[in-house]
Amino acid sequence: MKAAIIMGSDSDLPVLEPALKTLADFGVAVEVVVASAHRTPQKVHDFVANAADRGVGVFIAAAGAAAHLPGVVASFTTLPVIGVPVNSTPLGGMDALLSIVQMPAGIPVATMAINGAKNAALFAVQVLATADPALREKLAAYRQTMAAEVEAKAAKVAATLGQ
Amino acid sequence: MKAAIIMGSDSDLPVLEPALKTLADFGVAVEVVVASAHRTPQKVHDFVANAADRGVGVFIAAAGAAAHLPGVVASFTTLPVIGVPVNSTPLGGMDALLSIVQMPAGIPVATMAINGAKNAALFAVQVLATADPALREKLAAYRQTMAAEVEAKAAKVAATLGQ
Amino acid sequence: MKAAIIMGSDSDLPVLEPALKTLADFGVAVEVVVASAHRTPQKVHDFVANAADRGVGVFIAAAGAAAHLPGVVASFTTLPVIGVPVNSTPLGGMDALLSIVQMPAGIPVATMAINGAKNAALFAVQVLATADPALREKLAAYRQTMAAEVEAKAAKVAATLGQ
Amino acid sequence: MKAAIIMGSDSDLPVLEPALKTLADFGVAVEVVVASAHRTPQKVHDFVANAADRGVGVFIAAAGAAAHLPGVVASFTTLPVIGVPVNSTPLGGMDALLSIVQMPAGIPVATMAINGAKNAALFAVQVLATADPALREKLAAYRQTMAAEVEAKAAKVAATLGQ
Amino acid sequence: MKAAIIMGSDSDLPVLEPALKTLADFGVAVEVVVASAHRTPQKVHDFVANAADRGVGVFIAAAGAAAHLPGVVASFTTLPVIGVPVNSTPLGGMDALLSIVQMPAGIPVATMAINGAKNAALFAVQVLATADPALREKLAAYRQTMAAEVEAKAAKVAATLGQ
Amino acid sequence: MKAAIIMGSDSDLPVLEPALKTLADFGVAVEVVVASAHRTPQKVHDFVANAADRGVGVFIAAAGAAAHLPGVVASFTTLPVIGVPVNSTPLGGMDALLSIVQMPAGIPVATMAINGAKNAALFAVQVLATADPALREKLAAYRQTMAAEVEAKAAKVAATLGQ
Amino acid sequence: MKAAIIMGSDSDLPVLEPALKTLADFGVAVEVVVASAHRTPQKVHDFVANAADRGVGVFIAAAGAAAHLPGVVASFTTLPVIGVPVNSTPLGGMDALLSIVQMPAGIPVATMAINGAKNAALFAVQVLATADPALREKLAAYRQTMAAEVEAKAAKVAATLGQ
Amino acid sequence: MKAAIIMGSDSDLPVLEPALKTLADFGVAVEVVVASAHRTPQKVHDFVANAADRGVGVFIAAAGAAAHLPGVVASFTTLPVIGVPVNSTPLGGMDALLSIVQMPAGIPVATMAINGAKNAALFAVQVLATADPALREKLAAYRQTMAAEVEAKAAKVAATLGQ
Repeated sequence: MKAAIIMGSDSDLPVLEPALKTLADFGVAVEVVVASAHRTPQKVHDFVANAADRGVGVFIAAAGAAAHLPGVVASFTTLPVIGVPVNSTPLGGMDALLSIVQMPAGIPVATMAINGAKNAALFAVQVLATADPALREKLAAYRQTMAAEVEAKAAKVAATLGQ
Repeated sequence: MKAAIIMGSDSDLPVLEPALKTLADFGVAVEVVVASAHRTPQKVHDFVANAADRGVGVFIAAAGAAAHLPGVVASFTTLPVIGVPVNSTPLGGMDALLSIVQMPAGIPVATMAINGAKNAALFAVQVLATADPALREKLAAYRQTMAAEVEAKAAKVAATLGQ
Repeated sequence: MKAAIIMGSDSDLPVLEPALKTLADFGVAVEVVVASAHRTPQKVHDFVANAADRGVGVFIAAAGAAAHLPGVVASFTTLPVIGVPVNSTPLGGMDALLSIVQMPAGIPVATMAINGAKNAALFAVQVLATADPALREKLAAYRQTMAAEVEAKAAKVAATLGQ
Repeated sequence: MKAAIIMGSDSDLPVLEPALKTLADFGVAVEVVVASAHRTPQKVHDFVANAADRGVGVFIAAAGAAAHLPGVVASFTTLPVIGVPVNSTPLGGMDALLSIVQMPAGIPVATMAINGAKNAALFAVQVLATADPALREKLAAYRQTMAAEVEAKAAKVAATLGQ
Repeated sequence: MKAAIIMGSDSDLPVLEPALKTLADFGVAVEVVVASAHRTPQKVHDFVANAADRGVGVFIAAAGAAAHLPGVVASFTTLPVIGVPVNSTPLGGMDALLSIVQMPAGIPVATMAINGAKNAALFAVQVLATADPALREKLAAYRQTMAAEVEAKAAKVAATLGQ
Repeated sequence: MKAAIIMGSDSDLPVLEPALKTLADFGVAVEVVVASAHRTPQKVHDFVANAADRGVGVFIAAAGAAAHLPGVVASFTTLPVIGVPVNSTPLGGMDALLSIVQMPAGIPVATMAINGAKNAALFAVQVLATADPALREKLAAYRQTMAAEVEAKAAKVAATLGQ
Repeated sequence: MKAAIIMGSDSDLPVLEPALKTLADFGVAVEVVVASAHRTPQKVHDFVANAADRGVGVFIAAAGAAAHLPGVVASFTTLPVIGVPVNSTPLGGMDALLSIVQMPAGIPVATMAINGAKNAALFAVQVLATADPALREKLAAYRQTMAAEVEAKAAKVAATLGQ
Repeated sequence: MKAAIIMGSDSDLPVLEPALKTLADFGVAVEVVVASAHRTPQKVHDFVANAADRGVGVFIAAAGAAAHLPGVVASFTTLPVIGVPVNSTPLGGMDALLSIVQMPAGIPVATMAINGAKNAALFAVQVLATADPALREKLAAYRQTMAAEVEAKAAKVAATLGQ
């Protein structure tokens, strides 16, 4: 199954690049689309409504300010939707966070940290791994890589401090 | 022209009652509908998209939590949309306020205070008065009534304090 | 009918320029004035109180910090008043937002996003369109232009990603 | 010199009663008025503008929500204005606090704690004591009374704990 | 595959009951455990580390205050972890929300609304449906049930208003 | 060594009772005093300045609102000072938390959760255990008791759910 | 009478310079001192306690973070104390604001906006004017100067816009 | 006894440098380790669990975002744990502060100001001084040095102002 990434504006692309890179690292195919919940609602509907038929298994939707896009995507599908609040206003992303996470009962959106695109991709992989044992193994390997990276940082700090 | 009031759940009705009463006081006809941006998105679309043809001139949309309804209504019409953030979560309505007021450029929502349904109705009357001189006169009279009410309260306080 | 823009200081002018441009794009005439709710209250009163006689149909008032100007304008007129909270203090505009949006019952102010001057202008056009079918048509056309802009951005992202 | 207390609604009277009691304890005469910055702006102006001629030396203004009253009072006088944010919305008084304390340069309002009417009265006495040695002595005596009250509470706690 | 629900204290059970009911409605088996990230860290580790071997496919972890449990669970597994911030302090759940959602890169937690246990269960079903077509069909049916419930509420409001 | 508990008002006693109980459970002697940083600053100074001579090894200071007491205590001693923010205003304790935790460099205050008096006592025991091996052993035993309590809660939940 | 300005660190001097300039413009003599509520509490006490004898009539105290200085000054005098919250941490001055404004009943601090040193000086002049008719006249003149400045800004904006 | 400093990433090292310097100034030996609560939980456990055997008497743990590290450290030891919230997200460190300070009853973390590493070190010294009279004397001397530094700043300001 593929992942689909949907963003409201091309200005969100830099925030989402870690997600694209992470999905590529895991070998997960991805559809990317720019569509606005408010300016092109029909396009959002059309992209989402038949995504399962195109092989999409999970959505990542990113938006800032009054960030309705993830919730609107979730209203058109029962596939899992992951929301990424983007820090794009003077409120530090708190507006986007609350607009995404406080979804009313019935239509969940799995919310990540503000600008947390990398975790959105990792969570998408975890979802797809439910039906894909190869991804499960890659996730286990990734954890070991992360632990090794922490060790490398620890060595660097130890060297800096002359320990 | 009529006003249209749209709410996501019947639990918002008590918050909206001052709006219904105020519109009635001004003699403004009103359509009321329960429709959810997330649970019945098609119904929202259908109610809003041809509302102008039914004589609707202004919308009042109320919602709590991740309050997407006013913005979704605004995405389907160029009529003025007034948003009322409803206090329905432990965050005191701050989530609904930010979800409504921080709309991105292109699709405005005129946001009122948390639970500010009465002002939503007054603002709807002000909008309709743009094309209706009789409403303008009623608004002027209403201001005088409000001033008189303040005077009555002032007299009550003066009496209480024995001034 | 004209729109009137009122700001408390010339330092708010850069924030308001998108509003001026948008109103010009729609062919809406505009009066602009610098007047302070606290430093020149009489000037605010005089500008607002007889604005209807000069052909003003809607106000846009912008202010930062303890942003009283939109509410003070609204206290002098029954024309629709649109408030723009300006981010001008270390609190990211939250002070201005709450000072504008939390108006008590009786005197509504239609609040836009922090620094949301463009939407203030669009909403002003929507209000004036209540009595002006030509503006209604321009608004419909504007929506299509916005949708086309989203498509252009989508194409740009697709090209960047080599899709 | 007298103190003047101005409130936007009779619903603020319970919050202000500690101020009335404290001013009475210090023997400071007080004028009390209900007047709304938005609903009766002319009344506010008239009450404030010539207050100095009536012997008023300091103002206490209380308001909730988008609390403009203290700032509006301050715009009509150069006498000291003390603001009391009232907790009257789901935001816990944060809206009133920011609407009062974040006044722009030029027109200060001396802001007290949320619902801090007693301190408003004490500060008013401190201001009036600038020109009244008898009040200065009463303030010194009041401090000693407060210290004695703390001692009485300490004795109560010691008795409770069996120390 | 089963779902596993983990909570830090039995006091979180009432908040989680809608999750238990929803999982039962979908026929999803569930393990429930009380274990504290801080008071019984070893128990959390043991419950989580070999959960996949017991057939667990997704976790729901609920916690209030400095809500570390969901993140700690996520550190012991690569299965998807859904976090539910519980409102259990005077801060209205904001502390729990930020402690769960702001996870650093590498270990994602899918965060739901404050007290949003029902959506946690629905999202768990969406995750399990990735590998279970029968659940996908139930989710589609559930959406239709929800839409019908909105219609029932709409009818009730219409009756109340005599429309 | 003893612990000393200092509170600004007898109204803080109920919040502090878990601290008194916990210290008693560990057999730690305690001095309790009511003294106000602002109303009886000399008393605070005198209680704190020579406390070490009386055998005090650690302070617990509780206060609400603009909670200066813990910082003022810390300015008079180099013994460890533990601060407990008390929820006593409409701001949910956020004012007290920030007034205690954000101490400038040079004078630390060890801040606990809002109303976190029990943890203040446990931390005081941890500090005193630095010089008291018997307390260290009691702390280890206490952890096991807590773990057993979690197990008891787990059993209760299991019974409730019929697992 | 003189004004006294007290700051916790020389790093606050740039924030206070508008206060120094404004007091100089009004011809008000000023004492300036650097003293820390926590690092040099005795110095604060000694500076404040006999300030009235040196002719001080009003205090301005500025501090950031857990800003205790204004409240500590107020605990040592019954002269009016004006507090200026300084933005000196990542919290945008909200910590300093709450630490100053939320003073408990009995010891008021007249709080200004974050970094609002100019208004602190103006308010100090208003307090001193209570006993000084010449200052009252200067304040009236100052208001006219401010109004003229607004007019100058208005002219500038009008010229920019070609009106 | 030694202090141990634990950080989740080498990017926290600059924030912690004042702690390292301060501990060195007091002649307190220190272990420094990079270990992540989520990416290397076993390493955290192993570093903490037998630290007392290596002569560690107090921990300083720093983390940003959903800052679980201090609480996780505290779950593995009964030695005092001092938490430093790091400002590393668009929320200004508020997320880290709440994730650290709002620990549930049973497992305290002594929380310092956002980025307050210097105070963390001073508090660690205060804790170790409980069993080390030489450190107590150094702390007393340090207070005098701080007071002298304030005097030096005061002299600098006086010179700047020409007093």
